Amino acid sequence: MGVSITFQPEGKRVEVPPGNTILDAAKAAGVDLISICGGMGRCGKCRVIVEDKGENVSPLTEIEHRLLSDHEISLGYRLACQAIIKGPLPVRIPEESRTGRQRLQIEGIETPVYLEPSVKKYFIEVPPPNLQDIRSDVDRLIDTLREKYGLENLAIEYAILKDLPLVLRESGWKVTVVVWDGKNIIGVEPGDTTNRMFGCAFDIGTTKIAGYLLDLNTGRVLAVDSLVNPQILYGEDVISRIAYASRGSNELSDIQRAVIDGVNKILKSLIDKTGVKSSEIYEMTVVGNTAMHHLFLGICPKYVALSPYAPAIKRSINVRARELGVEVNQNGNIHLLPLIGGFVGADTVAVILATRIHERDEICMALDIGTNTEVVLGNKREILACSCASGPAFEGAHIKYGMRAASGAIEKVKINPENLDVEYKTVDGIKPRGLCGSAIVDAIAEMFRAGVIDIFGTFNKNISSPRLRLGSDGYEFVLAWKHETAIDRDIVITQRDIREIQLAKAAIHTGCMILMRKMGVKEADISTLFIAGAFGSYLNPASARTIGMYPEIPLERVKVVGNAAGTGARMALVSNSKRKEAEEISKSVKYIELGAERDFQAEFFNSHLIPYADLTRYPETMKELKSLNKSIKRPPIVFL
Amino acid sequence: MGVSITFQPEGKRVEVPPGNTILDAAKAAGVDLISICGGMGRCGKCRVIVEDKGENVSPLTEIEHRLLSDHEISLGYRLACQAIIKGPLPVRIPEESRTGRQRLQIEGIETPVYLEPSVKKYFIEVPPPNLQDIRSDVDRLIDTLREKYGLENLAIEYAILKDLPLVLRESGWKVTVVVWDGKNIIGVEPGDTTNRMFGCAFDIGTTKIAGYLLDLNTGRVLAVDSLVNPQILYGEDVISRIAYASRGSNELSDIQRAVIDGVNKILKSLIDKTGVKSSEIYEMTVVGNTAMHHLFLGICPKYVALSPYAPAIKRSINVRARELGVEVNQNGNIHLLPLIGGFVGADTVAVILATRIHERDEICMALDIGTNTEVVLGNKREILACSCASGPAFEGAHIKYGMRAASGAIEKVKINPENLDVEYKTVDGIKPRGLCGSAIVDAIAEMFRAGVIDIFGTFNKNISSPRLRLGSDGYEFVLAWKHETAIDRDIVITQRDIREIQLAKAAIHTGCMILMRKMGVKEADISTLFIAGAFGSYLNPASARTIGMYPEIPLERVKVVGNAAGTGARMALVSNSKRKEAEEISKSVKYIELGAERDFQAEFFNSHLIPYADLTRYPETMKELKSLNKSIKRPPIVFL
Repeated sequence: MGVSITFQPEGKRVEVPPGNTILDAAKAAGVDLISICGGMGRCGKCRVIVEDKGENVSPLTEIEHRLLSDHEISLGYRLACQAIIKGPLPVRIPEESRTGRQRLQIEGIETPVYLEPSVKKYFIEVPPPNLQDIRSDVDRLIDTLREKYGLENLAIEYAILKDLPLVLRESGWKVTVVVWDGKNIIGVEPGDTTNRMFGCAFDIGTTKIAGYLLDLNTGRVLAVDSLVNPQILYGEDVISRIAYASRGSNELSDIQRAVIDGVNKILKSLIDKTGVKSSEIYEMTVVGNTAMHHLFLGICPKYVALSPYAPAIKRSINVRARELGVEVNQNGNIHLLPLIGGFVGADTVAVILATRIHERDEICMALDIGTNTEVVLGNKREILACSCASGPAFEGAHIKYGMRAASGAIEKVKINPENLDVEYKTVDGIKPRGLCGSAIVDAIAEMFRAGVIDIFGTFNKNISSPRLRLGSDGYEFVLAWKHETAIDRDIVITQRDIREIQLAKAAIHTGCMILMRKMGVKEADISTLFIAGAFGSYLNPASARTIGMYPEIPLERVKVVGNAAGTGARMALVSNSKRKEAEEISKSVKYIELGAERDFQAEFFNSHLIPYADLTRYPETMKELKSLNKSIKRPPIVFL
Repeated sequence: MGVSITFQPEGKRVEVPPGNTILDAAKAAGVDLISICGGMGRCGKCRVIVEDKGENVSPLTEIEHRLLSDHEISLGYRLACQAIIKGPLPVRIPEESRTGRQRLQIEGIETPVYLEPSVKKYFIEVPPPNLQDIRSDVDRLIDTLREKYGLENLAIEYAILKDLPLVLRESGWKVTVVVWDGKNIIGVEPGDTTNRMFGCAFDIGTTKIAGYLLDLNTGRVLAVDSLVNPQILYGEDVISRIAYASRGSNELSDIQRAVIDGVNKILKSLIDKTGVKSSEIYEMTVVGNTAMHHLFLGICPKYVALSPYAPAIKRSINVRARELGVEVNQNGNIHLLPLIGGFVGADTVAVILATRIHERDEICMALDIGTNTEVVLGNKREILACSCASGPAFEGAHIKYGMRAASGAIEKVKINPENLDVEYKTVDGIKPRGLCGSAIVDAIAEMFRAGVIDIFGTFNKNISSPRLRLGSDGYEFVLAWKHETAIDRDIVITQRDIREIQLAKAAIHTGCMILMRKMGVKEADISTLFIAGAFGSYLNPASARTIGMYPEIPLERVKVVGNAAGTGARMALVSNSKRKEAEEISKSVKYIELGAERDFQAEFFNSHLIPYADLTRYPETMKELKSLNKSIKRPPIVFL
């Protein structure tokens, strides 16, 4: 009863019932199509070209008329989430609507950790029963472990018990016992398998999932892989996913299934790369923000998004692999690190663990930049943390030519302040398809340095250059001319794009300022600023500072640390003491709910200026601007 | 592709593939058909009448020629396990091949127990979160339980966590928390449900399963039900089931499924009778012999049947209901009581718990009569236990007209020693269909008293009575004439039947004698003999003593206690201390492997005599016989 939809250029065909949208069909076909708002008709990113404008598709909606230009409409462009299928259709997905194969930063800093995983293996020879010794199989196993290794009060997993008589006898009573947390037998394997003991650590980000496979005998990382979080089909940001999951138990279970599937895909790839068997992976640690944590566990996340933002559980939790459908050893344990509060989740606990802020004398700040950005400030005496709704703009969403750091994305931009010539560099060095986050930050910083925009982020209309022009969305600045690009169009930054980035950077800056004020700390007191997260790794720290994404800390004190959350997850995987430290961090870090702060609104307004309303806090930036002979046009207005 | 088989008199129709046996089809149709050996062609009980002797069924096998009489063959009788279906068939199941609806003894003795179940309910009002109190849902729940009830170190079940945010908010933060073992939250229910807390206790016998539903707030039994153990399809005795389960993991899982299905059927009936919801049953205790215990857990029982008979696990074990598929609260706990050794299982631990042998000063003996009969001897200082392979003869198997204690079974027999007239009583007072175990024991005791059989169990061929005659299976004694019965045939006891009962009673008697000898105890030292088990409850203790099923203990010291194992299971359900006692019993009771005893063979031979080779140990019985003027023909031969 379905109708056939063909997606070009892949030529993928799928059968769907009439009444589905083209976006539904794209999901069903598994083709690469951006959908940032999750099909709500808000982001306008899921553009496709319907190559047959007949009766087989619904007419254009009001939303499409608003989000598509007349020219695009004349070319057959539709929004996949709006166009309803009535009959067979040929659909083309244009280059700019593809997420591409993403390049993601997943290298972290390394902190030395004493190897003491919660799973251990013991090879033993069990005395076989005879008529003088008729102890049960379990008793003789446990007695031998006590006699040989001093293990007391061991319990045995029911699932292990079922095959125990066979395993003991078929192995000639020589077995390797897998013990979890010194108290629970989770495996009995024939022969000596002590040299095969593996674990994995996962960082579940809103946008990406990164997985690490480690040898628990050595602590060595054997393989790493990552994937776009498949939950992205249900919305690009946390709030839209929470909204979807809150609709009902089927939706919640869909979205949980999506992330578990993603984890299993990464596991399969890690296994394929290394030859490790899934049954040899006995332990897994997971970090993620509060929403990702709850959705991974299938806990209704509705209240995490509603004031007062109480999570269902804050402490760490251990769940059997089989209860979650994670494809490691089915008796293996999944350890979710504890949360801090609000959206500040286990990933932030892991970032603190990895950067050792909780052990340091000097005050440090850490930003874990993502769809939500967490800010951490403190030292071993006190730590504050907050979450800033920086949104997906740094990942290219809500940006006209924005895209992720995939092949063909402009990733670095230089603008000559004299003639406004633009130099850029793309991922993989091919013709540009769009801009990734680091390039947008670069471009805004460069435009500010070149006087193209002012402290309010507004284009200086007195400039005369063909690059600054009035486009269909208002003023825009051309970064790459049509003939240079892979998409046969000029790549521009619009006034609206700048506003999006201003909102995003203001969110982060506000978090930094409020934490500093609460702790009574100035820029000079901060010995190190750690910038973590995939996006943070590509970011030019100087550009970020110029636009005022973070307070003006000397650049030599800024340390880009990659996926610190992943590093923390790996530390907790190989070390039980680190898990205890994580629990302490979770308890002691003070969560600051920004929305509840009295000066939040004023600070947010001040922070949306470039770099900031109070320029006395950006002396180095001011000096640099003066050296470029670009004087600040107006004296700054401080709203504090 | 299946062919249609119709079973009369029910008119049940089932489609099965050609190549299946009629027994397979009967199982598929769920019709009532005895199969004692589990389709091995040994018991000859699965007799059916094929009402169409055409090409649609395989020819008679050698086994059928041996086990069916020519007359039966002429009537169309087949063994359902031998007859292979080739096409559609009408099949009639005769009266004697039906198990009938069984009457089972499930009332136990009552021992007062202090009520302290391992599951407890706490009604609390949890303070809702606000911006000043952003503790997680779990923390505020656990904090409230600590503050109000002093509960420390509580953990929460993952499955509970998933719905916790909704339950707390939808109930207005007034909830009842179900805590298991003082440490694990297994339920959070809206409102005050403290008055709804139920548990169930199961005794899984080889032949029957008995289930009790209890109110854990009062300890009161709300409902009781029982069922033939559905594993009977795989063989009537323990050894044939172990053989089936040892064939492979599918077979093991079939047979586990069968018993779990049986438990679930009883649960459904208990629920239907009382209106209790399955989700309100939070705890279940299970007792059974070692094989039933292992099969219930799906543990390969192969080695339980092979010397040195080591069980997989002896200690008690707790398994989540959902892991076993038992239809109570899915987070509820299934507690299997510990075993003793060999086939002496958790049921015997429960019998000791119920009869309090482990607390008594005086020496007691207990027999738990079943397909395996366990013998326990001792007091608070020392207890010995053994298992005797008494077999299913007492349940009517291997007895020509044997049947279970179902409607129409002769259950009591009196023989006039003067004229050999027979008086009998049937279950439900209807025309007899066969003999149940208690009647067989009565009949043999009465025949012995009347001189119809001698000390060797052999018919006295000098007797001239139409009741003693030479039948197709050798000599036989007529209990009911054809015209009195519901099966249109004489109901007789054959010489072979007597031999079967001699073997069965000898097994039990041997166990008693060996334990007494090991402990240095004489009949006079035994203050009480407890006779437990469903069969034991119908048994006439005097008849059993006359045939020498147990040593000659004064009848006033013999106490019939019904399903003591079920009573013990109920005690462990409502009392945590009783579980600890059970663990102590399991550790301290000394298991005696009869097969390993030097004098086993001689004792078994002596015990097969009626009542026993050494008549000096049966003075009362001798006196009684003398009063009947039936002198013992020959002096007894003692082989010790």
